[in-house]
Amino acid sequence: MVNVELVKSPVVRPDERGHEADHPTSLVAAFGMDQPLRLDCGIDLAPFQIAYQTYGTLNADKSNAILVCHALTGDQHVANINPITGKPGWWQTLVGPGKALDTERYFIISSNVLGGCMGSTGPASTNPATGKIWGLDFPVITIPDMVRAQAMLIDSLGIGQLFCVVGGSMGGMQTLQWTAAYPERVFSALAVACSTRHSAQNIAFHELGRQAVMADPDWRGGRYFEEGTHPHRGLGVARMAAHITYLSDAALHRKFGRRMQDRELPTFSFDADFQVESYLRYQGSSFVERFDANSYLYLTRAMDYFDIAADHNGKLAEAFRDTQTRFCLMSFTSDWLFPTAESRDVVHALNAGGVRVSFAEIETDKGHDAFLLDVPEFLDIAGAFLNSAASVRGLPVTGA
Amino acid sequence: MVNVELVKSPVVRPDERGHEADHPTSLVAAFGMDQPLRLDCGIDLAPFQIAYQTYGTLNADKSNAILVCHALTGDQHVANINPITGKPGWWQTLVGPGKALDTERYFIISSNVLGGCMGSTGPASTNPATGKIWGLDFPVITIPDMVRAQAMLIDSLGIGQLFCVVGGSMGGMQTLQWTAAYPERVFSALAVACSTRHSAQNIAFHELGRQAVMADPDWRGGRYFEEGTHPHRGLGVARMAAHITYLSDAALHRKFGRRMQDRELPTFSFDADFQVESYLRYQGSSFVERFDANSYLYLTRAMDYFDIAADHNGKLAEAFRDTQTRFCLMSFTSDWLFPTAESRDVVHALNAGGVRVSFAEIETDKGHDAFLLDVPEFLDIAGAFLNSAASVRGLPVTGA
Repeated sequence: MVNVELVKSPVVRPDERGHEADHPTSLVAAFGMDQPLRLDCGIDLAPFQIAYQTYGTLNADKSNAILVCHALTGDQHVANINPITGKPGWWQTLVGPGKALDTERYFIISSNVLGGCMGSTGPASTNPATGKIWGLDFPVITIPDMVRAQAMLIDSLGIGQLFCVVGGSMGGMQTLQWTAAYPERVFSALAVACSTRHSAQNIAFHELGRQAVMADPDWRGGRYFEEGTHPHRGLGVARMAAHITYLSDAALHRKFGRRMQDRELPTFSFDADFQVESYLRYQGSSFVERFDANSYLYLTRAMDYFDIAADHNGKLAEAFRDTQTRFCLMSFTSDWLFPTAESRDVVHALNAGGVRVSFAEIETDKGHDAFLLDVPEFLDIAGAFLNSAASVRGLPVTGA
Repeated sequence: MVNVELVKSPVVRPDERGHEADHPTSLVAAFGMDQPLRLDCGIDLAPFQIAYQTYGTLNADKSNAILVCHALTGDQHVANINPITGKPGWWQTLVGPGKALDTERYFIISSNVLGGCMGSTGPASTNPATGKIWGLDFPVITIPDMVRAQAMLIDSLGIGQLFCVVGGSMGGMQTLQWTAAYPERVFSALAVACSTRHSAQNIAFHELGRQAVMADPDWRGGRYFEEGTHPHRGLGVARMAAHITYLSDAALHRKFGRRMQDRELPTFSFDADFQVESYLRYQGSSFVERFDANSYLYLTRAMDYFDIAADHNGKLAEAFRDTQTRFCLMSFTSDWLFPTAESRDVVHALNAGGVRVSFAEIETDKGHDAFLLDVPEFLDIAGAFLNSAASVRGLPVTGA
């Protein structure tokens, strides 16, 4: 366990050409002035670009493509070494040769979301109208906006129907939005640890994070790049708050309990006496090295606004009525950010809409983070669902 | 619902004589250089003072005194208009004429804790050795230190045994510490929504709050009074985080849900669109007007350090073995800060120690805050417990 204070850290900075230069390994789909993205707020965004990664090979009839959608602080580097952190891809438990999302059979696409900070257009990009970094002048985006941009990416790859859309947490929200907005383009959908809308408590935690960022004088009303500062302290605090919600009480107890850090007796100070304190500080300080503060504001806002039922007179079942998409939803018993009861509500709505859906509630004490961890039951069920859908779609299956 | 931004607010400032001058309505017990308080950290604190309030009349044999212990951000103003906020006392549901803690029968004492900011000696007091405000030079204190100071206050009032010690949350921790440290001085004890030690998640939330305060450049390493600043933004964020933990998910849903603030459609901005956002911002901004940031650090630290069993070789039952004190513990089903299972563990330890204890788990969706609210079942059981103890003690009972 490393005892790290929240320190000022170098942060990924966009250069004058836009920050795609920081991601030489990512592909970029660029959309010009003639291909604007109509946003929910009413603004046409153009030009813009989406950074993405692919794994595996698209088959001849383009029927084996899977889109992986990332969570709040994820990115397109699902199954390769992340060029910023040097760490393995964030979903290598699920994606790779022989895994549930088998890169030897499927063509996996993962894009950085609109509003993100890993190569897709977002608040850290240059506003072509001013030549300056967008900052808070960037339009407020929504989950449907993200999905609309992804659909344009999929169009640009010449793919009509995705074999599957897969995602957890914010990625699960995108997955469900895909099925609501483009049912005919989604053969199957795997949505994990998510919901069709944020609860009041979810919004409260996100608002806390945003206020932590905005309370940092170095945030400068969002103009920190121009002013040569960075709200690393506020963003670090926001990350600490979020991180607590990603773990269960039981997981924190198991990992840390009340154990002290390299000592047996308290120091009677404000040092990180307890291991859990040191862990949180480390989570905060390492996050600010890889994430843009304004992107954090925009993406949390998009999650808070998300409400599929609201677009269907409050009737969730209507959003999915008679879709032919095959669904699998999964939740984790100790996830208190997206409680399993919310997944059940979505399943009931899908049932009411006459939709083919399977649901698995995974027993684990690992909390919301379970979807990113090596939880065999989750990975096995995901693999079985994909195999079953592949069989119906006429794609190769494992063990066949 | 008021839509309030986190704004710079005037804060209670100690004057040159120490900040007791801000609390003209409170009594003060002052202890001189000849009456040092031996702290757990090994330091003798002298001089120091404890500010307190009393309600009702002490009877001739001094057998009707009840000590009320306050929670983290509470104070001595249990049942009178708070001179700082102008609001009613924080436990007027429980304390007053004809109420469970009946001021017509009992003599109620409530003191601001050591380390607090409402007249008792704390980090905002003047360090007599330097003539400057203590700030972070104030020694780190513990729950046992607070209780030791309270015992000196009770001594100064000439009271040998308290008829009852009562408290919720951090006040419940003090209550349990009283029974462990001074069993012969506590005839009965009512501990609500508390625990004998903080969980890893409890510590994590407190550390988040401390880091939010310390991340504010206006905190100035704790020397904000001298430097004419105040970490109002950081303290406001800390309060927002804490406030989320005081309410249940269900209570937030019932109070706010996803309802918008004075509008039906989102603004596509970072304004407080949702009522829950506005509510949290208000909680943050109003708190910084009444509370000292360094006190917040010290009191959260004291709660994190608290662990009664640790002083008894990890055996909680040993801390209470064969005490004659009559206990009542109460918890609330939707309290996720001090889950009801933790109260059960304390009850089991008391049972194992051969102690007389009753336990009530109150069904409510109001979360941790329930102990401060008008929850009839809670108030009724508290009154019945006090009545029963009064009968045994030979004190008047209601309806008799």
